Amino acid sequence: MKMQKAAFMRGTDKMILKEIEVPSIKDDEVLVSLEYVGICGSDVHYYHHGNCGAYKVDLSQDYMLGHECAGTITAVGKDVNDLKVGDRVALEPGITCGKCEACKSGHYNLCPDVVFLATPPVPGCNEEFIAFPADMCFKLPENVSTKAGALIEPLSVGFYAVEQSEMNTGDTVVILGSGCIGLVTLLASKARGAGTIIVADLVDARLNKALELGATHVINSKETDIFKKVKEITGGRNADIVFETAGSAVTIAQTPFLTRRGGTVVLVGIAAQEEISYNFAQVMDKEITIKSVFRYKNIFPKAIAAVGNGAIDVASIITHEFTLDDIENAYNEAVNNKENLVKAVIKIK
Amino acid sequence: MKMQKAAFMRGTDKMILKEIEVPSIKDDEVLVSLEYVGICGSDVHYYHHGNCGAYKVDLSQDYMLGHECAGTITAVGKDVNDLKVGDRVALEPGITCGKCEACKSGHYNLCPDVVFLATPPVPGCNEEFIAFPADMCFKLPENVSTKAGALIEPLSVGFYAVEQSEMNTGDTVVILGSGCIGLVTLLASKARGAGTIIVADLVDARLNKALELGATHVINSKETDIFKKVKEITGGRNADIVFETAGSAVTIAQTPFLTRRGGTVVLVGIAAQEEISYNFAQVMDKEITIKSVFRYKNIFPKAIAAVGNGAIDVASIITHEFTLDDIENAYNEAVNNKENLVKAVIKIK
Amino acid sequence: MKMQKAAFMRGTDKMILKEIEVPSIKDDEVLVSLEYVGICGSDVHYYHHGNCGAYKVDLSQDYMLGHECAGTITAVGKDVNDLKVGDRVALEPGITCGKCEACKSGHYNLCPDVVFLATPPVPGCNEEFIAFPADMCFKLPENVSTKAGALIEPLSVGFYAVEQSEMNTGDTVVILGSGCIGLVTLLASKARGAGTIIVADLVDARLNKALELGATHVINSKETDIFKKVKEITGGRNADIVFETAGSAVTIAQTPFLTRRGGTVVLVGIAAQEEISYNFAQVMDKEITIKSVFRYKNIFPKAIAAVGNGAIDVASIITHEFTLDDIENAYNEAVNNKENLVKAVIKIK
Amino acid sequence: MKMQKAAFMRGTDKMILKEIEVPSIKDDEVLVSLEYVGICGSDVHYYHHGNCGAYKVDLSQDYMLGHECAGTITAVGKDVNDLKVGDRVALEPGITCGKCEACKSGHYNLCPDVVFLATPPVPGCNEEFIAFPADMCFKLPENVSTKAGALIEPLSVGFYAVEQSEMNTGDTVVILGSGCIGLVTLLASKARGAGTIIVADLVDARLNKALELGATHVINSKETDIFKKVKEITGGRNADIVFETAGSAVTIAQTPFLTRRGGTVVLVGIAAQEEISYNFAQVMDKEITIKSVFRYKNIFPKAIAAVGNGAIDVASIITHEFTLDDIENAYNEAVNNKENLVKAVIKIK
Repeated sequence: MKMQKAAFMRGTDKMILKEIEVPSIKDDEVLVSLEYVGICGSDVHYYHHGNCGAYKVDLSQDYMLGHECAGTITAVGKDVNDLKVGDRVALEPGITCGKCEACKSGHYNLCPDVVFLATPPVPGCNEEFIAFPADMCFKLPENVSTKAGALIEPLSVGFYAVEQSEMNTGDTVVILGSGCIGLVTLLASKARGAGTIIVADLVDARLNKALELGATHVINSKETDIFKKVKEITGGRNADIVFETAGSAVTIAQTPFLTRRGGTVVLVGIAAQEEISYNFAQVMDKEITIKSVFRYKNIFPKAIAAVGNGAIDVASIITHEFTLDDIENAYNEAVNNKENLVKAVIKIK
Repeated sequence: MKMQKAAFMRGTDKMILKEIEVPSIKDDEVLVSLEYVGICGSDVHYYHHGNCGAYKVDLSQDYMLGHECAGTITAVGKDVNDLKVGDRVALEPGITCGKCEACKSGHYNLCPDVVFLATPPVPGCNEEFIAFPADMCFKLPENVSTKAGALIEPLSVGFYAVEQSEMNTGDTVVILGSGCIGLVTLLASKARGAGTIIVADLVDARLNKALELGATHVINSKETDIFKKVKEITGGRNADIVFETAGSAVTIAQTPFLTRRGGTVVLVGIAAQEEISYNFAQVMDKEITIKSVFRYKNIFPKAIAAVGNGAIDVASIITHEFTLDDIENAYNEAVNNKENLVKAVIKIK
Repeated sequence: MKMQKAAFMRGTDKMILKEIEVPSIKDDEVLVSLEYVGICGSDVHYYHHGNCGAYKVDLSQDYMLGHECAGTITAVGKDVNDLKVGDRVALEPGITCGKCEACKSGHYNLCPDVVFLATPPVPGCNEEFIAFPADMCFKLPENVSTKAGALIEPLSVGFYAVEQSEMNTGDTVVILGSGCIGLVTLLASKARGAGTIIVADLVDARLNKALELGATHVINSKETDIFKKVKEITGGRNADIVFETAGSAVTIAQTPFLTRRGGTVVLVGIAAQEEISYNFAQVMDKEITIKSVFRYKNIFPKAIAAVGNGAIDVASIITHEFTLDDIENAYNEAVNNKENLVKAVIKIK
Repeated sequence: MKMQKAAFMRGTDKMILKEIEVPSIKDDEVLVSLEYVGICGSDVHYYHHGNCGAYKVDLSQDYMLGHECAGTITAVGKDVNDLKVGDRVALEPGITCGKCEACKSGHYNLCPDVVFLATPPVPGCNEEFIAFPADMCFKLPENVSTKAGALIEPLSVGFYAVEQSEMNTGDTVVILGSGCIGLVTLLASKARGAGTIIVADLVDARLNKALELGATHVINSKETDIFKKVKEITGGRNADIVFETAGSAVTIAQTPFLTRRGGTVVLVGIAAQEEISYNFAQVMDKEITIKSVFRYKNIFPKAIAAVGNGAIDVASIITHEFTLDDIENAYNEAVNNKENLVKAVIKIK
């Protein structure tokens, strides 16, 4: 029996390594030797708090985190035709039923029966090998590394947010929040040809990262009146599209004031609290459309193509890299060094 | 000089009649002998409170209300080709610039330079004759009366709300509020083939009217738990589309809970207060889209066609009819008898 | 072992009845006691010609036709939760993979691995019992008969065509062809609130049926210049939407000339020949959009709801009814009496 | 009276210069001192053939060509608020009525009363000064030259084609034709983040230009089987979007074969002949959508923004530059040197 190394959280703020079995594959699965696994904000939240939104880790047992990953195929099931041993792939971590109303209508991200890596009680992928359905493994072209491949998952959130916005080339956009999701929304906006990209945050280090990745303007909302500044930049017109990626009550409440008449708000950041005071008079007076984003759907092939042809340099968001043996340190850094650590990845192999 | 009778509010809660000049027409205008003028909730608000939303009547002067009207053309300007004397027409009351970004992109309802009848300081049409741009006068077919014609304007709000919703035949809809705007949204939903139409209100008389006009289910939210009831009717799935037409903080807050995963909320009722507590976690978890409606655009020809072929019996929402001489009484009834008076029209001629 | 009666074509133009086994069900399937099966144009084509488009019946073996059906559930697999014995259901006859790009994006009608009843070599449902995946069986409400239920399938084609057209209430539509598909497109257009519905065909009997089902105007293209007539009816504007349901080179070629500037053509009828001479200058000058329809997707629940609430009386298209024992006669009538037989159903039980 | 130099065609294949009056401006107009005017394929067609499509030059009189232009404002009418003397602007050359159904619904490109520069009998802008409505003059940011500004007009066609296609980042596109319109479609596709961009033409010089501007693959259709090659590049899947920019019967007929199931064809090139043999069976089997492009609408501000932020280097399509005095030579080169002259501009000042 083949064994592999895997990392588990043991209670909160503690990560241990164990030897576990390498899984066997079903006929429609492939075995992937993982090379990189990203650390997501939700992973960090589970690690530190034991929960994320409504989902709770059963802290009486060890639990494996991680859902952003890529690697190389080492075995294929007998019904798999499109992939072969040696292919490098990024994994889309949500397996859906394919039969419900949501799945049939293309909104599989809303499937009530989804099995999503590292959403309790489903284990994650902080390990060396994973058996996964072939149709959820997307081949990387030669010029896309598995390090970039592991970031296709978080990129997909920003990528999908931009698709939901129906952005046109030349549009003016505001992105509230310059964390990982804000930055991937920025990368996707730039790849789609946004004309003016204004990023707002409270932390200068994050705003500098945004400038580096292509923001045309940044605003530190602690120091600057964001409403005046956006009006000034846009000649009084405000933004075609406002992306909210921070999830705070303050930034959600800002959205309609930053949007032009007839414009669109896209809610991407997970709302930190349920009830938020919102100015609907502003929404209606401007006939604003509000779209929201729950994970993503049908994005991986397009996101990989955009990384492959150079439209998006997704690895540029990585600020920290750790080994699997050093994973507890990685998670602790992610908890404690929020200002500098924008995105960390674990190098598995 | 030809004279005509016209009604003006003189301060609040008082309406007087005066003789004024019949206007002359410009080259691109027609003169319309008005036959019916509706009373809108905004008219009543100006009449009773002196304001509506941000707009205020200058109470130091007489002010003419009314913006829902239809009549017969009695003269045409020399540049008018599509209309002739004797044509019966409904008037779209908002004249826009045709040159701004909003107008050019088809969103003329968002034109910042709109001149809208009975939105202060622009006078309304509670009078016998009006000179109006020919391109804003829409010919009624033989089988559509000018009484129905005067209601094309309020119908257009509901009609546009349904277009914004992108409703499909067979969809399940919830309509919050069974006043005039709720009822025209109901008529438009039914004409578009909604499968299940659930109307909620606090007043039984209004709900009975909804049943009469085609609602498949009604809910008195004072007596019944609307959340449970909508789940029960829809087999736990909730509505594809929720129209909010009441404008209250309570009903706006209800919307995301009544919507299915992936469904749409359409805000139609003007928010009575600016800031409203709203559950954005619900919005994001269900990936709800929120659309809003500011007046309407490009609706009159389609709404007239739908009335003309019998898909919508718009005159069925009329509960009260008054003469021009009796207009003060009409407005007072509209102020004081909200439960029974759903829609009143003034017969001008 | 339980046996059932089933009908098979034996070569062309011959139908025989045989005793075959009642199938057993898988865990995710239900057993349906069929009550009505419709006869589709494709069934008739296979029966008379041995092929339909690129698909060929292996005439060396008996082959079962029929794919429009409804009945009552008599057994359910152990994984089936949403349906129970006694439920009356309509069957959606195309079983798709759920895993390909088309399926995941909601376009399952384009799944390359679809298994579709009565598309060779997959057998049809001209039989008493069928085992079918529960997620493809759609429950009929009390007031929808299984006779109407068997017609949900052909209705879905017209219903989907109307969805593809993005029709608005009040729109002017032209429907070319008044056969079964033309008529269901008419029913769906009327249910969605089309303002003016013009149906053209070469056969008066069919046009009379169209008038009976709600066409506002009919045109016999053999006798009347359709281009002049449509202009006359529409005041020179032409149609917002033109549905082509006949599939002939002549009617396909007519489409851009009948469409208004900025309007939409929807191709529904299967093109009888591959290469057709088409006026693309007309398309471009008017900036026409051409949509096409391959079967349907995500329609059954909405179509059933529309039939359930009375928006569509789908059984009204039935002109002939036969018993299972009389099925050869039914198919021969369908071959030979095209003018009068618009839609035939087989009563199984 | 101030005079200016202007170029006129005198019969075909002959261009003369004359002194004419500098026009006076109306209250809503600005006077623009033109700096660059592009030469469009339609200009060349009028010059050489005396007509273009259905439009004919009255050859008994001198006629001014040119409709792609930019310059600096030297005077503003008294109703003009948004522009001032010294502003550099690009001119959108089609002035529309603002009142018809097409204009009101945002499709002003389909206005039947459009007045379009250099579409007979409306004169063009091959001159030093033009008086033009302020709302059709779009301010250039500091970093966009008037040379680039003169190319916003042709860019807008490709830009609009991409908007019509609803392209997503990462999509695979085929562009048929590598002339001016093909190249601006390529620039706009690249700016919107297309993943794979395949350009096909018959002339290697043009294909090399396409490679230089960002095509990922080029195909010389004279030498290579385009159907096989596109399948090979796309792994058998074909393109999400096929743009036809050549207008030939051959390339139009190729479109459905190069499109994936569920994909989109966008017709951009003006069809050289009216009737074209087209494979509609292919369209329907793949459920292809065909969109078409008539000029453009609501594009200038977005196109200028995209050029301004560097997403599009529109001046890179210029291969030749001439002075106004040398304009006859310029037009003759455009007629005779089609292979090398992709895009020429006239430097006015």
